[in-house]
Amino acid sequence: MTVYQSSFTIQSDRRPTFEDITDRVVESMHNSGINNGILLVYSQHTTCSVMIQEAADDVNYWGTELLMQDLVNVLEKIIPTCRTEGQYLHPGPKHIQAAAGRNEEAFWSLNTDAHLRSVLMGRSVSIPIINGELMLGEFGRIYFADFDQVRARERTVRVQIVGELL
Amino acid sequence: MTVYQSSFTIQSDRRPTFEDITDRVVESMHNSGINNGILLVYSQHTTCSVMIQEAADDVNYWGTELLMQDLVNVLEKIIPTCRTEGQYLHPGPKHIQAAAGRNEEAFWSLNTDAHLRSVLMGRSVSIPIINGELMLGEFGRIYFADFDQVRARERTVRVQIVGELL
Amino acid sequence: MTVYQSSFTIQSDRRPTFEDITDRVVESMHNSGINNGILLVYSQHTTCSVMIQEAADDVNYWGTELLMQDLVNVLEKIIPTCRTEGQYLHPGPKHIQAAAGRNEEAFWSLNTDAHLRSVLMGRSVSIPIINGELMLGEFGRIYFADFDQVRARERTVRVQIVGELL
Repeated sequence: MTVYQSSFTIQSDRRPTFEDITDRVVESMHNSGINNGILLVYSQHTTCSVMIQEAADDVNYWGTELLMQDLVNVLEKIIPTCRTEGQYLHPGPKHIQAAAGRNEEAFWSLNTDAHLRSVLMGRSVSIPIINGELMLGEFGRIYFADFDQVRARERTVRVQIVGELL
Repeated sequence: MTVYQSSFTIQSDRRPTFEDITDRVVESMHNSGINNGILLVYSQHTTCSVMIQEAADDVNYWGTELLMQDLVNVLEKIIPTCRTEGQYLHPGPKHIQAAAGRNEEAFWSLNTDAHLRSVLMGRSVSIPIINGELMLGEFGRIYFADFDQVRARERTVRVQIVGELL
Repeated sequence: MTVYQSSFTIQSDRRPTFEDITDRVVESMHNSGINNGILLVYSQHTTCSVMIQEAADDVNYWGTELLMQDLVNVLEKIIPTCRTEGQYLHPGPKHIQAAAGRNEEAFWSLNTDAHLRSVLMGRSVSIPIINGELMLGEFGRIYFADFDQVRARERTVRVQIVGELL
């Protein structure tokens, strides 16, 4: 039994960003040498999510897969994009003051929608590894989502595996 | 420390299907001999979910537990059942073409609602095993949900356990 | 490789309760001596959730962090607070009869909203431990949520860790 860990980075945009990270996760699994176990794909960012979904094949003019744009459209109905302060309770004055102390622009904190969308969708997926194969089925792909629309950033994805070597 | 894996199948219907799989998961745990660890119940199908919920006792005319029907009613409000193409962006023309290449009926791809409901609800649950007992509390039951309403299918549920033998 | 388990309790209120449990989880990790692995924070209660979120700094008059109150406001729109029987299908007559057999007040079962909110938000989070550090990033905090609004109760949070000792 062993623990394996790796990470890689993603560049997000100033709109909900979805990146198919399946190949990088599978490569991590191969590098680990772990043949049977549990693989955790995890984002430590509180405006991001990790999800398993079918590939949509088609994309919109922005390059977003249509199934992911359908998801954004659903989320927009229940958690509208935060366009100005006062739309949500958060961020309050103490939060803005703390952000200023970190030399952050005030508008960087206008990502309440992203915090809420991310916690609703979840920050990780756990996937069985069986006989050296990641159990995604025929159509399952792993996506990293960054819901933050106020700034483009480099984001870290972590792959943590606990299991048995071959 | 060891890894144990098992799987079993579920027959879904052409409506949201919820099946109480607690007994089969507990049986897997007993078969594993693992006394302390983490148990993952996982669905590799991108229109299905695994959830922990209280048993409702009462069912509707379809046999669906009332708490699960309440869940379907909530989901219907935010992610309406897909009744025809064009209601959601997905499936687009490339997706339909790819499905035709797999000899799939076009209407089989009209399950966008199920893809979205499933990713919102999550594809797995992780549960502690302590001294040979699955920590579900007095009322927790494990359900497999198939949200796909376009065809009835056989579905696979995987149980993956990492932990210590007695 | 080893398995470590611990638990602690939370006192909830008759309104959605959010408690920052980060320090207690990190203390459990330190007590475990596990340096690399997967840490599961889990609630066995079917009206509760465990979530990772940024701290909001500001709180409302009830002491609820503003980002969590924003979450409650979103949930209220899609899963309204259950105020009387008949608003949701659950609880049905058999459920009320079973509850009466456990000497429960009938109104204790009017927590359908909490069951639905909890299963939507999820019952656990899994977090990597790398070189003795819990991977929460700069802003991630772990919250225990009790969505049950019909009674104040003591709740159990479980921390289960699988990994390698230093």
